[in-house]
Amino acid sequence: MDFNYKTMNRRPPLTQSQDDAVSSPSFQISLMDESSAVTGVQSIRCRAAVCRKPGEPLVIEEISVAPPMAREVRIRIICTSLCHTDISVWKLKDPLGIVPRILGHEAFGVVEGVGEDVNEVKEGDTVIPTFMADCGDCEDCLSNNSNLCSKFPFSMSSVMPRHGTSRFTDLNGEVIHHFLYVSSFSEYTVVDVAYVIKVDPAIPPNRACLLSCGVATGVGAAWKTANVKKGSTVAIFGLGSIGLAVAEGARLCGASRIIGIDINPDKFEVAKKFGVTELLNSGRLEDKSVSQVINEMTGGGADYCFECVGMASLVQEAFACCRQGWGKTIVLGVEKPGAILSLNFFDILLRGKTIMGSLYGGLKPKSDIHTLIKWYTEKKLELDKFVTHEIGFGDINEAFDLLIEGKCLRCVIWMNK
Amino acid sequence: MDFNYKTMNRRPPLTQSQDDAVSSPSFQISLMDESSAVTGVQSIRCRAAVCRKPGEPLVIEEISVAPPMAREVRIRIICTSLCHTDISVWKLKDPLGIVPRILGHEAFGVVEGVGEDVNEVKEGDTVIPTFMADCGDCEDCLSNNSNLCSKFPFSMSSVMPRHGTSRFTDLNGEVIHHFLYVSSFSEYTVVDVAYVIKVDPAIPPNRACLLSCGVATGVGAAWKTANVKKGSTVAIFGLGSIGLAVAEGARLCGASRIIGIDINPDKFEVAKKFGVTELLNSGRLEDKSVSQVINEMTGGGADYCFECVGMASLVQEAFACCRQGWGKTIVLGVEKPGAILSLNFFDILLRGKTIMGSLYGGLKPKSDIHTLIKWYTEKKLELDKFVTHEIGFGDINEAFDLLIEGKCLRCVIWMNK
Repeated sequence: MDFNYKTMNRRPPLTQSQDDAVSSPSFQISLMDESSAVTGVQSIRCRAAVCRKPGEPLVIEEISVAPPMAREVRIRIICTSLCHTDISVWKLKDPLGIVPRILGHEAFGVVEGVGEDVNEVKEGDTVIPTFMADCGDCEDCLSNNSNLCSKFPFSMSSVMPRHGTSRFTDLNGEVIHHFLYVSSFSEYTVVDVAYVIKVDPAIPPNRACLLSCGVATGVGAAWKTANVKKGSTVAIFGLGSIGLAVAEGARLCGASRIIGIDINPDKFEVAKKFGVTELLNSGRLEDKSVSQVINEMTGGGADYCFECVGMASLVQEAFACCRQGWGKTIVLGVEKPGAILSLNFFDILLRGKTIMGSLYGGLKPKSDIHTLIKWYTEKKLELDKFVTHEIGFGDINEAFDLLIEGKCLRCVIWMNK
Repeated sequence: MDFNYKTMNRRPPLTQSQDDAVSSPSFQISLMDESSAVTGVQSIRCRAAVCRKPGEPLVIEEISVAPPMAREVRIRIICTSLCHTDISVWKLKDPLGIVPRILGHEAFGVVEGVGEDVNEVKEGDTVIPTFMADCGDCEDCLSNNSNLCSKFPFSMSSVMPRHGTSRFTDLNGEVIHHFLYVSSFSEYTVVDVAYVIKVDPAIPPNRACLLSCGVATGVGAAWKTANVKKGSTVAIFGLGSIGLAVAEGARLCGASRIIGIDINPDKFEVAKKFGVTELLNSGRLEDKSVSQVINEMTGGGADYCFECVGMASLVQEAFACCRQGWGKTIVLGVEKPGAILSLNFFDILLRGKTIMGSLYGGLKPKSDIHTLIKWYTEKKLELDKFVTHEIGFGDINEAFDLLIEGKCLRCVIWMNK
């Protein structure tokens, strides 16, 4: 497959200085030839979907994107996809829900320009930005055992990680905040090079973008965090995209039984396509708990239990039905800040079970993503089935509706449509 | 070294039927030649230290030990050692602290006789009994990943595991309860063959007995449960025998830094002999928490944190200072029944840390104990330094005093003294 990224974005940006941008509220889209601009050194005006008020529809507006500073990369977004975390944060009020902000953290794009000291990518390279840094230098990035860069730790910060400032302003000069160091709901964004993965241009953009977060997280949680063994039994609590991506990962690892648990039976038909072998409606168990039922179904518990909803009580259930002796409970779902997980001390001490979290599926962005892409090209990893909807950028709020209503897994938003 | 177990026990037992024993309150010790008795088929009268009332001195009295039933082994105890769990249970009231009971679960002995269908050991074999079964048949025992026999799960039961009855009666015919399937505070005991490890008679009894529980647990927790890597940093909360055994295990695994934490600085000099490289008095930290200090000392946390005290709040501290990205917190200490461990959900989800328990150090009794013995004979595993006191059976209550007062690590109790 060949993608012509030079013509893909039909809306070439006006390239001008940031000062100029700030002073030009009556912005007009220029149709000047993009190739004549000096890339990466001037502000760009482009369209972005800005979260102006928590929980209200994003506003598509013209913004100014400053040039990348040292070790930063300015990226022309080709497509982006919507993740539940975007929705969770979109609903939040201050301070986590700071506005105005450009959300979006699953994307695929082309490098438009680079700041000083960037050698890893150059103009024209196809890239996936991620919310997880991989600086390549710190003790964590140099270790095979960690995917949590200690130079640039995970945070919900609203500014660039290295320089602590925003690259976005609106046409009144007001700063617009970043999100998860990606902010892909914009035709152009600036991402620190530690968060940029150079990828083969042959991968379809609407598949590559899935690897920025959700799908990679689920597949990685089965593959890297849990290290699911062939022939094992897996229980997945929550059959949204992350849970189904866990199923996909577990299938790839050779799990024999994949038990899917959800309170919404509408998800069951889809789940079967992802290799889920048994389905459990947790809302219809009468006098038994989920863990009791799964312990019975499995004769003592699943080898691996994945919590993909983000409820402390569900983690307790998952832990209660992971196999004594070697069972692992992997926490993927995002609870509300400050939530407490309470476990019986003796159940930790005496049962030989392990509990662990999984951020980005334990994947190291700059190495493991290439393995996932390889699996995709070899037709082992089936990314296609995650993409249930594709829309144009102007309709981005529809993607929110679809995901909130549980009508889609991944909705890909094309910037040039 | 050669041990003559035929002459070691100077008090050969009277062998007679259980009925006879029950009807003979005016028991007299017979000096008949032990070799003339038909082993394993009749009741034996012998001395035992019986817990008659919770928390009160054990009573040395004559008891009757019934013949072993099918798959059971009657063992002449050569020596036993005192573990904190004996003391914890000795203090407990009903139902966990059921009396009368014969405590003791760290021991070395010689097979006196076997019940039906016992092929694994025979009369005269030297053995270590343990509180952990290794049936060799169940899914867990056949797996390399579990040490929790599912046929005979760990429990605080007071009867034999297979037949559900006691082998002990006092001279009034009252049943005396078992403890942890071992009950080694008796010259003779009956143990299910699933709990009996046949060992080379060349190992000194007063070293072998340590492998029944405490020392094996600590060494195993570092070696098997945590799988401590060479060059890593280990933090040990609590410098009792278990904590020092963790240090010994960590040293064997090649840990570079072993940080010992205790509220009692009297333990620090001893700890140095066990390879502890840095010591922290957790009672004198002024305005910082233990985890803060350890995070500072280690530049971000220890690779492995072992909680060897049994306090949920200390597990929280241990978890808070195990290294983000790959840190493991291993729970060894025994909290009170029903205790809850509360952790911040995000600290589980986002930090790449793992929490797990370790029962018997993750060791599989019938295979891993042989590795520990091999390491001992190769002078790698230093068991000698754990034995701080040795006393005769008649003085068994002194061992309780010593351990309660923190004056000993392991006190070996010789049955023939």
